[in-house]
Amino acid sequence: MSELSINRLNTADPDFEVALRRHTEWEEGVDTSVRQTVAEILKRVRQEGDAAVLEYTAKLDSLSVASVNELEVPRERIDAAMHAITDEQFQALEAAADRIRRYHREQLPQDWSYEEADGTRLGQRVLPVDRAGLYVPGGKAAYPSSVLMNAIPAKVAGVEEIVMVVPAPGGELNDLVLAAARVAGIDRIYTLGGAQAVAALAYGTETVPAVDKIVGPGNIYVAEAKREVFGRVGIDMVAGPSEILVVADGHTDPDWVAMDLFSQAEHDEQAQAILVSPDADYIARVEASMARMLPEMERAEIIRQSLADRGILIQCASLEEAARVSNLVAPEHLELSLADPDALLPQIRHAGAIFMGSWAAEVMGDYCAGPNHVLPTSGTARFSSPLGVYDFQKRSSVVHFSAAGADRAARCASVLARGEGLTAHARSAEYRIRD
Amino acid sequence: MSELSINRLNTADPDFEVALRRHTEWEEGVDTSVRQTVAEILKRVRQEGDAAVLEYTAKLDSLSVASVNELEVPRERIDAAMHAITDEQFQALEAAADRIRRYHREQLPQDWSYEEADGTRLGQRVLPVDRAGLYVPGGKAAYPSSVLMNAIPAKVAGVEEIVMVVPAPGGELNDLVLAAARVAGIDRIYTLGGAQAVAALAYGTETVPAVDKIVGPGNIYVAEAKREVFGRVGIDMVAGPSEILVVADGHTDPDWVAMDLFSQAEHDEQAQAILVSPDADYIARVEASMARMLPEMERAEIIRQSLADRGILIQCASLEEAARVSNLVAPEHLELSLADPDALLPQIRHAGAIFMGSWAAEVMGDYCAGPNHVLPTSGTARFSSPLGVYDFQKRSSVVHFSAAGADRAARCASVLARGEGLTAHARSAEYRIRD
Repeated sequence: MSELSINRLNTADPDFEVALRRHTEWEEGVDTSVRQTVAEILKRVRQEGDAAVLEYTAKLDSLSVASVNELEVPRERIDAAMHAITDEQFQALEAAADRIRRYHREQLPQDWSYEEADGTRLGQRVLPVDRAGLYVPGGKAAYPSSVLMNAIPAKVAGVEEIVMVVPAPGGELNDLVLAAARVAGIDRIYTLGGAQAVAALAYGTETVPAVDKIVGPGNIYVAEAKREVFGRVGIDMVAGPSEILVVADGHTDPDWVAMDLFSQAEHDEQAQAILVSPDADYIARVEASMARMLPEMERAEIIRQSLADRGILIQCASLEEAARVSNLVAPEHLELSLADPDALLPQIRHAGAIFMGSWAAEVMGDYCAGPNHVLPTSGTARFSSPLGVYDFQKRSSVVHFSAAGADRAARCASVLARGEGLTAHARSAEYRIRD
Repeated sequence: MSELSINRLNTADPDFEVALRRHTEWEEGVDTSVRQTVAEILKRVRQEGDAAVLEYTAKLDSLSVASVNELEVPRERIDAAMHAITDEQFQALEAAADRIRRYHREQLPQDWSYEEADGTRLGQRVLPVDRAGLYVPGGKAAYPSSVLMNAIPAKVAGVEEIVMVVPAPGGELNDLVLAAARVAGIDRIYTLGGAQAVAALAYGTETVPAVDKIVGPGNIYVAEAKREVFGRVGIDMVAGPSEILVVADGHTDPDWVAMDLFSQAEHDEQAQAILVSPDADYIARVEASMARMLPEMERAEIIRQSLADRGILIQCASLEEAARVSNLVAPEHLELSLADPDALLPQIRHAGAIFMGSWAAEVMGDYCAGPNHVLPTSGTARFSSPLGVYDFQKRSSVVHFSAAGADRAARCASVLARGEGLTAHARSAEYRIRD
């Protein structure tokens, strides 16, 4: 077995920022054949409904049934899953769901309005979307935690119906995933996957109801289908590979940090694990821990490849500089593995989730801390947020004018409308001016 | 001149919903040649920076200069615009900006956190994006109101720098647009347009700084470029044609409602104006008002075409049914032109902005009521919101664990991670379990 290989940077290097960008940039090339395949599936499901869904499911998921109704997972199958999992697993799911629910309730916004002196009232209403669709990958990437993280914010938002789709090649379903769906309060489950599942949710078929928002991870066909139906329905961000950046001052046991980096790297070969520290000796100790523990890991080959391709050890001059490095990366997960993480927090501008101190490992956020594990990747934390209740709600502005308020606003609107050459606008306003 | 022509529906018709959907559906087909042109422009600007920007600006906007620096609008040009507009126009811009600022301040969210009994603290921080880009169309669609509506929420959010781009074919700039930029507090303006402007903002060039979010309306090339750079930067919704739906009980002067419908129809031939009322006689009176006033309108031909192609008069059985029709359409602008609009409001589920009663004309919302005029079109109010302060901010989850809290969470995370076959995750958690 080869030695541990990992990239190294030092903020003192000339062109450090260019090198950092080269190591962290991620561009998902969607090739033309994927685009065309997805476009064809979307078009056919939209036009032919259930018939096309059945055809693609038979062809792509080796699951042949006579009607889409047969693809709906019956209550009894979910009951069976609840019995198949261990008590410990059930309790862990319930505990995680409770904590996620508790945290997301804090995100519930209020309607608001204010009244002006002349009686004019302005405000904003917040309402949930009517129906949400949740895509859950099948096979080896079937993650019950992902069901909880995607469904619970929708429930907290007040979404009336959540429809889950999960591919079941050959009819195989994961009991923990079904149990998580029950715990999260999912209303219906169809064993459907791929672009055809996204199409069914976006357009609706005779059997599958059309939804207003589609969330959840998937392969490149699912991601491309979501991108294409965006506008028809809302979607969550299309996620890139998962990342962690650990800022360490040497305070945390190097084995812990090494394992935190591994927990990211084990996802897949594209996952990215970065350590930033002003302490060269500590970096060397974490590296030694990784080299020692790597052979014991069940997913050692994935971890090895991920570290060799995308892992980075970055030596910097100070913790302030480490914060600047972190802001350049805008990581999905940031561990401030420091004696005093609160001191550095104000300097952090962009990160999906920030784990403060040695006790707060990213893995707790993946499952049960409470915050969402669906986070902005590939630097998109510069402008986007963790999945939340706000993703399942939308706002309407509400405008009440008193006669006096309308008079004043109409005079202003008339001047600006005429300045823009829009005279029907101006006349519509002028009707509301009092003589 | 031909007579007024407009579509008619009755909720009692068989297949009413199908007909309504056919009349209101909007699908923007982006043809392959547009996609290819935009892809080429994006690629060249990304690789060649300023040189490509200059070449496209000379070719597409007939504006030849030696360096991109020369495309930055100097302070003196904006000073000149401030002198060129009338006092009345300046005061209207200031009044509108004040009201928009006041309204959007209500949208400022707070950081929040809570502490659990064992000392674990969970929360969310809200921070602005670092830099925003604002696209402003040139030529006849140069709307100063659009500058205010896009820039002010960013300023209120705390965005440090706003970069505006506006095409100036042949160097021509609109004084009202420049004055609005000054009033809104825009930091830099470049006379750049089209996909090349979007590319410069998304990737940055030697001269134009890269931004984190791009907002603002544009033609099909601009819309396609925004769609393509999404993920690299955040974007606002890609807007379809503007729409209004008026629910009327006969209480408002039919001339007022007719002009409100015209104010939507005058935007362009694809704009959509819909009247829904249970009162057939009132619908006839609004129609008579439209027929009488149409010949007087400066943009009569656009209005005539818009009404003939996309206008609809819908007779329904009751106001409750009118609310259901409105929810099916999920209109960008909804006027509840009713004696008691508050009574119907709870039944409205989807609308960008809701104008309550006869005094609240949509036009006031377009300019100076306070709420944003950038609103979800084409039924996207089912899942999306008016442009707001929230579009220029992003959130980070913050997780602090006490030793006792970490112990509990780690036990739960370990069970779920092992259930998912992710053993580095499990071991990372298990380090945090106390012996």
